[in-house]
Amino acid sequence: MSTTIHTTGVTVAIDARRLWERHMTMAQIGATPKGGVNRQAFSPEDGRARQLLVAWARELGLTVSLDAVGNLYVRREGSDPTAAPVLTGSHLDSQPTGGKFDGAYGVLAGFEVLEAIQHGGVTTRRPVELVCWSNEEGSRFQPGCMGSSVFTDKRQLSEFLTDTDKDGITVGAALQATLAATPDVAQRALGFEVAAYLEAHIEQGPILEAAGIPIGAVTGVQGSRRYTVEVLGEEAHAGTAPLKTRKDALKAAVAMIHALEATMADETDTVRFTVGRFDVAPGSPNTVPSRAFFTIDFRHPEQEVINRLTGQIEPVCRAHARGCDVIVTRLSDVAPTPFDRAIIQTVRQHAGRLGLQHMDILSGAGHDAMYMATVCPSGMIFIPCTKGISHNETENTRPEDVAAGARVLAECMVDLANR
Amino acid sequence: MSTTIHTTGVTVAIDARRLWERHMTMAQIGATPKGGVNRQAFSPEDGRARQLLVAWARELGLTVSLDAVGNLYVRREGSDPTAAPVLTGSHLDSQPTGGKFDGAYGVLAGFEVLEAIQHGGVTTRRPVELVCWSNEEGSRFQPGCMGSSVFTDKRQLSEFLTDTDKDGITVGAALQATLAATPDVAQRALGFEVAAYLEAHIEQGPILEAAGIPIGAVTGVQGSRRYTVEVLGEEAHAGTAPLKTRKDALKAAVAMIHALEATMADETDTVRFTVGRFDVAPGSPNTVPSRAFFTIDFRHPEQEVINRLTGQIEPVCRAHARGCDVIVTRLSDVAPTPFDRAIIQTVRQHAGRLGLQHMDILSGAGHDAMYMATVCPSGMIFIPCTKGISHNETENTRPEDVAAGARVLAECMVDLANR
Repeated sequence: MSTTIHTTGVTVAIDARRLWERHMTMAQIGATPKGGVNRQAFSPEDGRARQLLVAWARELGLTVSLDAVGNLYVRREGSDPTAAPVLTGSHLDSQPTGGKFDGAYGVLAGFEVLEAIQHGGVTTRRPVELVCWSNEEGSRFQPGCMGSSVFTDKRQLSEFLTDTDKDGITVGAALQATLAATPDVAQRALGFEVAAYLEAHIEQGPILEAAGIPIGAVTGVQGSRRYTVEVLGEEAHAGTAPLKTRKDALKAAVAMIHALEATMADETDTVRFTVGRFDVAPGSPNTVPSRAFFTIDFRHPEQEVINRLTGQIEPVCRAHARGCDVIVTRLSDVAPTPFDRAIIQTVRQHAGRLGLQHMDILSGAGHDAMYMATVCPSGMIFIPCTKGISHNETENTRPEDVAAGARVLAECMVDLANR
Repeated sequence: MSTTIHTTGVTVAIDARRLWERHMTMAQIGATPKGGVNRQAFSPEDGRARQLLVAWARELGLTVSLDAVGNLYVRREGSDPTAAPVLTGSHLDSQPTGGKFDGAYGVLAGFEVLEAIQHGGVTTRRPVELVCWSNEEGSRFQPGCMGSSVFTDKRQLSEFLTDTDKDGITVGAALQATLAATPDVAQRALGFEVAAYLEAHIEQGPILEAAGIPIGAVTGVQGSRRYTVEVLGEEAHAGTAPLKTRKDALKAAVAMIHALEATMADETDTVRFTVGRFDVAPGSPNTVPSRAFFTIDFRHPEQEVINRLTGQIEPVCRAHARGCDVIVTRLSDVAPTPFDRAIIQTVRQHAGRLGLQHMDILSGAGHDAMYMATVCPSGMIFIPCTKGISHNETENTRPEDVAAGARVLAECMVDLANR
């Protein structure tokens, strides 16, 4: 490989301060009082974030386009007009009380790479593209990674467009409202050939920071399954109905979760078992609830453990139903994803050449790269985040790590674009 | 006593069919698809219900008035202009998924009594008044029995007016918006002398129906205490944060409720322990919840048991906090209420004279009569409801029981108004 010249040119053109300030500017959109962001998928804030990215891209003279699920692309042409592009990116949507870096880092580091390539006058054979995927978080509309999963399997689109949020608003309607913020962006066909995909992201865990290492070469993503459990009992008066005659949906749901905690007990603390949402109806203090609804998010690196433990979810819920009806629904099933060996090696190599310490790491969180891994060689670069805290308004990272990750990303993208 | 003539006159004038149809007409306001009503306190539906009652009262030539907390009065004058009135009534607000009869029965039976007195040309010494109390249910704005408790203790008013619902709307603002539906009703001072209070209500329990008895002479109301429990943990990413490092507010709340169930266990099934509301934040499936909030409604007929068991609530919650902060707040504390012996005897007597089977019964639910019992001789009349179901859209009762209760109420009110 003869990437030495490109390496130097593009790395030098990465502007650490500009990149950090773009994070601060982007974080003003949906800013929360505690310093985080609330920029949920297909919200007005999502629209304003897209607007800002489009404006920055046009300042640089780059082409922007949008596909049918709202994935937003920024393209810098290569020397070979027929070559498939290399793609980098992540997402700009956030959790309801999310941080400044989850997702935004991959988009802004990718944009910094485009700007460095442009300003550095670097020529690549393949086009280099940045993507901002739609609805990665999946908090308002489930499932998450909606943009990348539709990119890799178009058949899902029509089904997702009719999904609704808690207020009955469809994905289709919310998407149209959001896209009204960027009305003059060209439409692009959904799904196209990609030569390679590389996503930068904060680790969202404590490992890199604890090891004092700025670059993680991500070897893969643990598997996950998501479920909803609906418990249907019978409303009754809190003052009169004897407890033995009740079909109390809340108490049944509490018993289920309590029992599932015992089922999921794991000495090694590798199992990730989370109940993130829990609703009851009618939700009045003096009425016995007739309906309880909760979500289960289960993750583990080993398929065998995933199968064995999630196989217990429905039987355990049924065993604690206390006369209520129970509907257990599996929303998603993502197998553990190994990333492409050549991409992992490329990350290690360029980090080494830049004199940056690096280590292999497994991703605890799901990412759009999991879906891209099904259609092209894919990988990820992790940088540390403070105390491993993420999905939290206090989420933070260090400017020097932000810059280091962008430099490795820049080298890798130029390298991949010349293969 | 020489109530024989009055008895006959007013009982004959009770129109069972009109009374039943008024229930069906009123139930159209806030009607739900499953045949119930959603007519929450200080909602537009509450306003329309008040409008309908005012229109009916004016058709009869009766005086209507409103006090500062929105309690609505309909008055028929007596022969002694200086005498304190006798009062009957209940409430027109409902649970979010409530039934047609809870509260509405006491208001409509009371109105039927006024109409029967009016049409029957019956003269009473004291004025007879109907009251529709504000916010008995306490589901949108806590606490319930707001109208009657403010009537009996005016000092609470200013505090209640600034209380907010889940969306941050104050009682004061919602009350003003509701009262805009009846702009031309005269204002009346809050709290006045009442000679006696008698409230008709469906039992909301299974006892009368099971016994095949149409009239319950209510001897008192069990005591109740309401609490909120707020659990404050720490948000974290569902995929990455090891379970041992989490401060999971939801799982702590689940452990608390599970432990409280054991604490409240009662062989005799007399304890009423209900968790009716349970919220988590941020409520995203892939974020560990940082906040959980739930309500506790506890009731029992014996003060000693109330003290002993509710005294365990805070220690049990603290013991299961799992590193989270816990804030236990007592919202209300209502001692068991015995009703006035003379009023109970009056109900028994007139039921007997009308040839209706009756029995003494304790109320499991709280009612506005509990508050009135602190300022005047008070009591209640229960009629059966189907399967004891209440706070439920399928709540039902039989037209013949509705009429029987109104006849006993009419006799009692005329009797009390002549004492």
